[in-house]
Amino acid sequence: MTAAPEEPLPPAPRNIALVLEYDGSRYCGWEKQKNGLGIEQVLEDAIARITGERPVINGSGRTDAGVHALGQVASFTLMHRMPAADLGRALDAVLPEDVAVLEAREVGLFFHARFSARSKTYRYTLLTGRAKAPLMRARSHHLRGPLDREAMRRAARLFVGRHDFSAFCHEAERIGDCRRTMHAVELIEDGRFLQVELSADGFLYNMVRIIVGSLVYVGQGKLDEATIARLLEGGERKFSGPTVPARGLHLVRVLYEVGGTG
Amino acid sequence: MTAAPEEPLPPAPRNIALVLEYDGSRYCGWEKQKNGLGIEQVLEDAIARITGERPVINGSGRTDAGVHALGQVASFTLMHRMPAADLGRALDAVLPEDVAVLEAREVGLFFHARFSARSKTYRYTLLTGRAKAPLMRARSHHLRGPLDREAMRRAARLFVGRHDFSAFCHEAERIGDCRRTMHAVELIEDGRFLQVELSADGFLYNMVRIIVGSLVYVGQGKLDEATIARLLEGGERKFSGPTVPARGLHLVRVLYEVGGTG
Repeated sequence: MTAAPEEPLPPAPRNIALVLEYDGSRYCGWEKQKNGLGIEQVLEDAIARITGERPVINGSGRTDAGVHALGQVASFTLMHRMPAADLGRALDAVLPEDVAVLEAREVGLFFHARFSARSKTYRYTLLTGRAKAPLMRARSHHLRGPLDREAMRRAARLFVGRHDFSAFCHEAERIGDCRRTMHAVELIEDGRFLQVELSADGFLYNMVRIIVGSLVYVGQGKLDEATIARLLEGGERKFSGPTVPARGLHLVRVLYEVGGTG
Repeated sequence: MTAAPEEPLPPAPRNIALVLEYDGSRYCGWEKQKNGLGIEQVLEDAIARITGERPVINGSGRTDAGVHALGQVASFTLMHRMPAADLGRALDAVLPEDVAVLEAREVGLFFHARFSARSKTYRYTLLTGRAKAPLMRARSHHLRGPLDREAMRRAARLFVGRHDFSAFCHEAERIGDCRRTMHAVELIEDGRFLQVELSADGFLYNMVRIIVGSLVYVGQGKLDEATIARLLEGGERKFSGPTVPARGLHLVRVLYEVGGTG
């Protein structure tokens, strides 16, 4: 018996991960929308322009309209053979000036920007004091009155650990499991700015903005620590603080397991 | 003899100094122009709106179109009696979102934002590496190629001291005295950015942008230290480096003598 003539293997798809920075000001958010441009769409168009392919793009999470990213992660599969680093540079060059590709690499086929993520870090920038900050106006939220920083720091610590964040997410998401593990909530003084940096294994819809709004309420004496502690056992959204504006919010980084990219 | 009935003294003018932050992106510069809005004009309109007066405003210096300020100083005299701090807050509130009043105080009548200045500090922000920086795109200049930082640092030191900066200013200003004393030129690594910070007793037209352009040329191997040293003895503009774009430039602060405000 002789072997049948071997046909060449069909080309295998590759899985590509990108690290993106963007200014969310003119976008309706990460996701494509009927009325408004999504960053996902802009990225898809750039990939099509470079490779001729239109893969499904997975983001590590959907950032809202006006939210910025210093290290959003996106992944997609591609038949095109261009080396990942070259693809990254080509995409950075054709993307509009408010979206950048900081890094591009080939990852294992089971890597998924959203489902493989283990930890995410967001930063919210509050401008304190009376004067405006023209050079940071698209990236900060201005609070003119006094803030009790110590009360805010004490309240921030309450969020750390595994909690039911039902009271700290948009009503739309309360039907699911609202338990998440918060790794850290840090308040960082930065000149006229107060940065709130939060890391968790995952975030619910509007969760960072409602937690920051609640910390601001604590700083203004409108909410107390005991109430925060009770709300973290699965309270109602109407008792927590306001949703602060999107423009102060930055997705800073997303972490994956080493070796977990396969 | 009896004294003639005394008339009340006419109200005395007060001298006010402001510290301003602005995003220069949409302005034709500090100064009023026929074709384009100057920051001076916007400030004058705000003062008129609050006080009903239109004083002559003196800036510490004229920033060019697109140049930003973190601490520009302006002074003007006013008959209005509003306390300076209240005036500052009122101006900040009516000024557009890209111009802020960080501080306002009453100063002695001989204080002049320009002539009383003893030292100014500018910062130029270079973005290095291949990827864009969307969140800093209005405030940095992108250089993609490699830069010899050590050569740049050595060249930077040559500028310190009293020199004839004829080769490092716009042709328009070469007719006057081009000697200035440079206090410091520092290169500061800041993540993907390289900040060049310069302090001097005064700066000529385009001086910071041409010095930074010359340092970039040194970093790219297009200019050597010996040439810089020769040019600092009063060379020609055509032998120094290019004028880097305005958007990377920030007026950081202006210093005055303590007690020199009177």
